Amino acid sequence: MTSSIEKYDIVIVGAGPVGLLLSACLARWGYKVKQIDMRPEPTATGRADGIQPRSLDLLRNMGLKRDIMKHDPAKVYEVGFWDPMDGGKGIHRTGTWASCPKFIDARYPFTTLLHQGLIERVFIADLEKNGVQVQRPYRITGFKQDGKDSEYPVEVSISHVNGDESETMRAKYLFSGEGARSFIREQLGVKITHKDPIAHVWGVMDGVVRTDFPDIKMKCTIHSDAGSIMVIPREDHMVRLYIQIASSTDPDWDPRKQATTEEVQEAAKKILKPYYIEWDRVEWFSVYPIGQGIADRYTLDERVFMGGDCCHTHSPKAGQGMNTAFLDAVNLAWKIHHVESGFAERSLLKSYESERKLIAENLLNFDAAYAKLFSSRQISAGEVGHVDKHAASGQQPQEENEFIKMFKASCEFTSGYGVAYNPNLFNWSEEHPAKHDYFLSEPKRTTTQRTGRILTPSTVTRVADANVVHLEQEIPLNGSFRLFVFAGKPSVTRKAITDLASNLRKKSSFYSAYMRKDVDSVSYHERHNPHSHFFTIAIIFNAQRPKIEIGDLLPEILARYNDHVYADDIWDQRVPDAQAAAHAKMGLDQEKGGIVVVRPDGYVGCVVKLAEGSGTVDALNAYFGSFVVKKVGGETAQL
Amino acid sequence: MTSSIEKYDIVIVGAGPVGLLLSACLARWGYKVKQIDMRPEPTATGRADGIQPRSLDLLRNMGLKRDIMKHDPAKVYEVGFWDPMDGGKGIHRTGTWASCPKFIDARYPFTTLLHQGLIERVFIADLEKNGVQVQRPYRITGFKQDGKDSEYPVEVSISHVNGDESETMRAKYLFSGEGARSFIREQLGVKITHKDPIAHVWGVMDGVVRTDFPDIKMKCTIHSDAGSIMVIPREDHMVRLYIQIASSTDPDWDPRKQATTEEVQEAAKKILKPYYIEWDRVEWFSVYPIGQGIADRYTLDERVFMGGDCCHTHSPKAGQGMNTAFLDAVNLAWKIHHVESGFAERSLLKSYESERKLIAENLLNFDAAYAKLFSSRQISAGEVGHVDKHAASGQQPQEENEFIKMFKASCEFTSGYGVAYNPNLFNWSEEHPAKHDYFLSEPKRTTTQRTGRILTPSTVTRVADANVVHLEQEIPLNGSFRLFVFAGKPSVTRKAITDLASNLRKKSSFYSAYMRKDVDSVSYHERHNPHSHFFTIAIIFNAQRPKIEIGDLLPEILARYNDHVYADDIWDQRVPDAQAAAHAKMGLDQEKGGIVVVRPDGYVGCVVKLAEGSGTVDALNAYFGSFVVKKVGGETAQL
Repeated sequence: MTSSIEKYDIVIVGAGPVGLLLSACLARWGYKVKQIDMRPEPTATGRADGIQPRSLDLLRNMGLKRDIMKHDPAKVYEVGFWDPMDGGKGIHRTGTWASCPKFIDARYPFTTLLHQGLIERVFIADLEKNGVQVQRPYRITGFKQDGKDSEYPVEVSISHVNGDESETMRAKYLFSGEGARSFIREQLGVKITHKDPIAHVWGVMDGVVRTDFPDIKMKCTIHSDAGSIMVIPREDHMVRLYIQIASSTDPDWDPRKQATTEEVQEAAKKILKPYYIEWDRVEWFSVYPIGQGIADRYTLDERVFMGGDCCHTHSPKAGQGMNTAFLDAVNLAWKIHHVESGFAERSLLKSYESERKLIAENLLNFDAAYAKLFSSRQISAGEVGHVDKHAASGQQPQEENEFIKMFKASCEFTSGYGVAYNPNLFNWSEEHPAKHDYFLSEPKRTTTQRTGRILTPSTVTRVADANVVHLEQEIPLNGSFRLFVFAGKPSVTRKAITDLASNLRKKSSFYSAYMRKDVDSVSYHERHNPHSHFFTIAIIFNAQRPKIEIGDLLPEILARYNDHVYADDIWDQRVPDAQAAAHAKMGLDQEKGGIVVVRPDGYVGCVVKLAEGSGTVDALNAYFGSFVVKKVGGETAQL
Repeated sequence: MTSSIEKYDIVIVGAGPVGLLLSACLARWGYKVKQIDMRPEPTATGRADGIQPRSLDLLRNMGLKRDIMKHDPAKVYEVGFWDPMDGGKGIHRTGTWASCPKFIDARYPFTTLLHQGLIERVFIADLEKNGVQVQRPYRITGFKQDGKDSEYPVEVSISHVNGDESETMRAKYLFSGEGARSFIREQLGVKITHKDPIAHVWGVMDGVVRTDFPDIKMKCTIHSDAGSIMVIPREDHMVRLYIQIASSTDPDWDPRKQATTEEVQEAAKKILKPYYIEWDRVEWFSVYPIGQGIADRYTLDERVFMGGDCCHTHSPKAGQGMNTAFLDAVNLAWKIHHVESGFAERSLLKSYESERKLIAENLLNFDAAYAKLFSSRQISAGEVGHVDKHAASGQQPQEENEFIKMFKASCEFTSGYGVAYNPNLFNWSEEHPAKHDYFLSEPKRTTTQRTGRILTPSTVTRVADANVVHLEQEIPLNGSFRLFVFAGKPSVTRKAITDLASNLRKKSSFYSAYMRKDVDSVSYHERHNPHSHFFTIAIIFNAQRPKIEIGDLLPEILARYNDHVYADDIWDQRVPDAQAAAHAKMGLDQEKGGIVVVRPDGYVGCVVKLAEGSGTVDALNAYFGSFVVKKVGGETAQL
C-alpha cells in the first residue's frame, strides 16, 4: 500500500450526461470523486438535447429541474406525421399523436428539448457545490489492478491532452463515460455487438428558420417523394433537422459520405414543399455515420464500469441516448453507495450490467424498427385512408400506417416509463428467495405497483404544513430505500401501525441493523434520514389533513418522520371515485393500506401487506435480508 | 433648458418592493431609470416576507417566479386557530382554514414566505440585465419644478449619505418608494391620516426553533391566557413570531416600550403551553411601534408620485404590505408607459391615486378589524363550541368566533384577488362614456368577468406547439393591453372573425391608430407586439387542437399572432360539463365567444360581444377612444 499517492472513491472519465449524473450523485452522498474530460469546455453546440418525462422526474428528484427549465427549453407534447400527397403535390399531415399519451401516468407528459451544453452546465454547477471540479482537458492513459491495495484496487493514470502533465492515483472504482470511442472499453477488450447490420449516415442541423410549415414547433416526421426528414423544436426559436444522407442499404453506400449545409438545406426545401423554409442562421451542422452497437459487458470485475454511449450506440431520432445514459448512471450510483456503506453485498454490483444491458437491448430493438420505418419511403396517405380526421376528433384512427403504429406502441418506451427491470434480489417476484405470504404482487394480490417499474405518481397533502405535494418526489435522490407506508384509515390500522413500530424496534430488524452510528446526535431538522441512511420512511393516511394528529396516531419512531406524514385527501381525475386517491392508484386497500418499498432510484422493489402482528416487518426483513450484509430477520421471521 | 445636466425618464427613491417593481417594469419597457437607496445593501434580515397568490401571478408574469421559488420558500396553505382551554390547561386548536380557499380560483392557492432581501435581490438581478444599477447609499436632498424644461420638469438632487458627493438631474417623473418616513412626502406637505387611532408596539422575531407545537410549519394565530402570538413559517427551518408588546389602549401605554429577545421568548413559552419551544438561534429581532396611516394624496401633479409604505402603514400581521406595494408599482408603471408612449391622455395618471388609494383604504379597514380581534383576549373554545370537529370534516363550523369569521371573510382580500377597482375610463361600466350595445357586463349580459377585477385563470392548449399553458400568463407583463378573443366554434364564428379583422384594418380603428412605426421591419420571431406596443392579441377557439389550422381559420393580421392561438380543449374541474372550459369560465357563450379586454396589469377593462359586422370593433374603438390621445372610431362607430 503506497502512501504518497492520491486516493479516490471513484475516477470518472468523461463529463457527458452519464459521467456527470454519476458524479453528481456520488458527490452528494459524500464520496471523493475525480472526474476528467478530454474537452477543454462543456459541449458548445449540438449533440443530444431531448429530456424524457421520466428523466425530468429524476432531475427534479435531484433538485435540478428548475435550473434546466430556467433556460426555457422547447416542450414537445405532440408529434406530427406528414406524408406525400397524391400526384406530387407535396406533403400533408396524416396524423398527430401525443408525445406522452394519457395512458401513461406521467407528471410531465412532454419531452424537454435543450442543448446538451446547458444541461451539462447544470450538473457542473451542482458538482461545484459539492466540491468536485471537472479536470480538463485530461485523458486517461492507463489503468491496472496490481493487487497492491485491496481497498483502492485500481491504479489510474491520466494526462493533459497535450501530454505536458500527468498524474497517477488509486481508486475503488473507475468509470468510463467516454462515449462511443472508449479507451477503457478497448483496454478491457470488451467487444461491441452490432445488432442491426444496417448503418446510416445522418446529417443534423440546428438553426433559426422562417417557414410557413405549420408544425415547425412540434416534433414531426416527414416523408416525401424527395426524401425524409425529422423536425425537432429547440429553445431560442431554434429547430433541429435530422436528415438521412446515406444508408448501408444504398447501392453506392459510403460510410464517409458527406453533405454541405447548403445541400441539406436544399433537400429540406424540397421535402417540405408546398411549404417554404429559410434559415436566419445555422448554429450547428454535422454529418456522421452511426451504427447500432451494444457492449458485450458493462463491467468485468465490478471495479471498472462503463455506461452511456460507451455501451450502446444507436440512431439519434428517438431522443434516447442521454436519457439511457442518465438511468445507467443512477442505477450504478446507488449500488456503489450501498456496497460502500456496508449495506449491500458486493455481488449486487453485478445487477448493474444485468439490469441496464437489458434496457439497452430493448432500446436497440426499438431503434432498429423505428429507424427502418423512418428511412423507408412511405406510402401515400391516399393508400391508407384519411387518418387525420380520426386524430383530430381525439379518436384513434382505424387505419394507420406502420410508422404511426410503431410510434404509438413505443410511447411508453420513449417516455422513459417503459423501463422494466426483470426480477432479481432487488425486484421481488414469486421466485425471490424472500418468501412470505405478505408480499403483494399483481395479479394474484391487490396492488397495481409492479416491481422493477417506476412508482406511480400521486398527489397528497403534507400534514405538517398542509402543502399539496407530489408524493413520488417527496423523498429526494438521497441514496436511501423509500418505504411508503400507506396507512389506510387510522381507526382501522391503529394496531397494525403500532405493531409495525414495535417490530421495527426489534434488534433483528433491518431498521435496527442499519441504525446510524450518530443517531443520538442527528440534527433536529433532519427530515429524511433521522435513523439510517439505508432508508427513509413516508406515511400516508386515508384521512383529511386536519384529522391527522401525528403525535396521537404514530408511535415515536414513526412520528420522527413528521415531515413525511401525508393525508391522502386530494381528488384525482384518474380515480375519480376513490376516497383516498393515492391508495387507490397504488391498488392498495383504502382502509387497510400496505407498504410500497421503492429502490433509491425510484423503481418498486416490493409491496408488502400492512397488518397486525409481526408479519409486515418479517416480510420486509426477508426482502432486505436477501441482499444486505448483516443478518436481519432470522428467528422472528415466519418464512 | 440646461444641456449639461443628466436626464432620466424617472428617478426612483428607494429600492424596496415598490421601487424595485416599478423600476423593473420601466427598465424592461425601455425607459431610462435612476434608482437610489439610502441603505448600503439590500435588506439583510427581517422585514416583509409574505407573497400573496395574486403577487405570485404577477411575479410569474414578469418571469421572476422561478427565481423566487429557487430559494425554497415556505408555503402557507392553511391557517390554524388556537385558543385557551378551560381551566388554564393551555392552548388547543379550535379550527383551521385554507389560506386561499377553493372559492377563490387561484393558480397558486398559498402564501409564499421568503425573506425580503432575497426578493429584492431577484429584482436587482433583473434590473441589472436591463442596465439599471441601484445607486447606494444615496439619499434625495431636494427636488423642484422650476418650469425650465417642460419635457423633464422635475429637477432632483441626491447625495451620498455621508454627504461627500452629490448630483443633480432632471426627470420626467420622480417616485418615492422611501417607506413610512418619506422625505418627498414631507416636502410635498402631504399629510397622513390615521384611520384607526389605536397604535401598537410589535415585537417580531425570526429564528430556528425546536418545538412539539404541531402547527409550527403553518401560519397560526394563538390566543392564550398569557397573551397572543402569531406564528409564520419561513424558509430554512425558520419561524417568525409576532407578538404584541403594547397597545395604545393599555392604561400604561408607552409607544417606546421595549422588550428583549429573552422577554419575548419567555412570553412565547408561556403562550404556547402545554407545548415546549426552544430556540436554536435568533436571526432577527425587532420591536417597533406601528400605527395605521394613509397618505391624503399619492401625487399632487402627476409628476411626483408616491407608493408603498410611504402612502399606507398598518400592522404587519396580514402580510399585506409588500403585496400592496407591488400592485401600487405595476398600476403606476403601465400608466406612465401609456402616457409616455403617446397612447393615453396624461390626465389618466390621476387614476393611479384614485385606484390605489381606495385599495389602501380597504386594506386599513380590514387591518383595523383584524388587529383589534388579534389583540383582544379571546373567549375560550368551550364558550363557542368545538369548532374543530367541523373543520376536520371539511365542513364549515356552525359556530365560530369573531376572529375566524373575520378571517374567512377576508380570505379574498388577503389572497390579493379581492382587489376591485371602481369604474373609470379603464374599467367599463354602464356609466362609461363608451356606449355600445355590445359591451357585456354582469348581471345584465353573459360574462363572469367583472371590470376592475383580475382575469379568471384558465388552461388551454397552444396550437403552434401543443403545449398546455396557463392562458392568463401567456401574455407577459409587456405594458400592452391584452385582447383575449374567445373565438367560439370556428364554424359558427368564421364570418365574425373575418369581420373583426377587416374592421381592425380600417383607418379609424385603434389597431390602425397605434400601429408600430417599424411594423415592416419587426422580427419574424416577435410573438407579442408584431403590430403595436399598445396591444397584444390572443385567440382561443372552442375546438380540439389538431382541428385548428391557423392559416385556414384566421385572416392574415390575426394569423400573425400564430404563437397566441389556443385550443380550449382542456377539461376543468370547476366547469366539469363545459365543452370549452375557458369559454365557460369567462361566462361566454361557448359557440359564439366574446372578447375580454384586459389592462396591462391583468385587470379586466371591458368585455365585448363577438359578432358579424362592425359592432365588435366599434365597441372596442369606443372603449379605447375614451382614453387614448388619437381619435379612434368616429364616423363608423354606432354610439
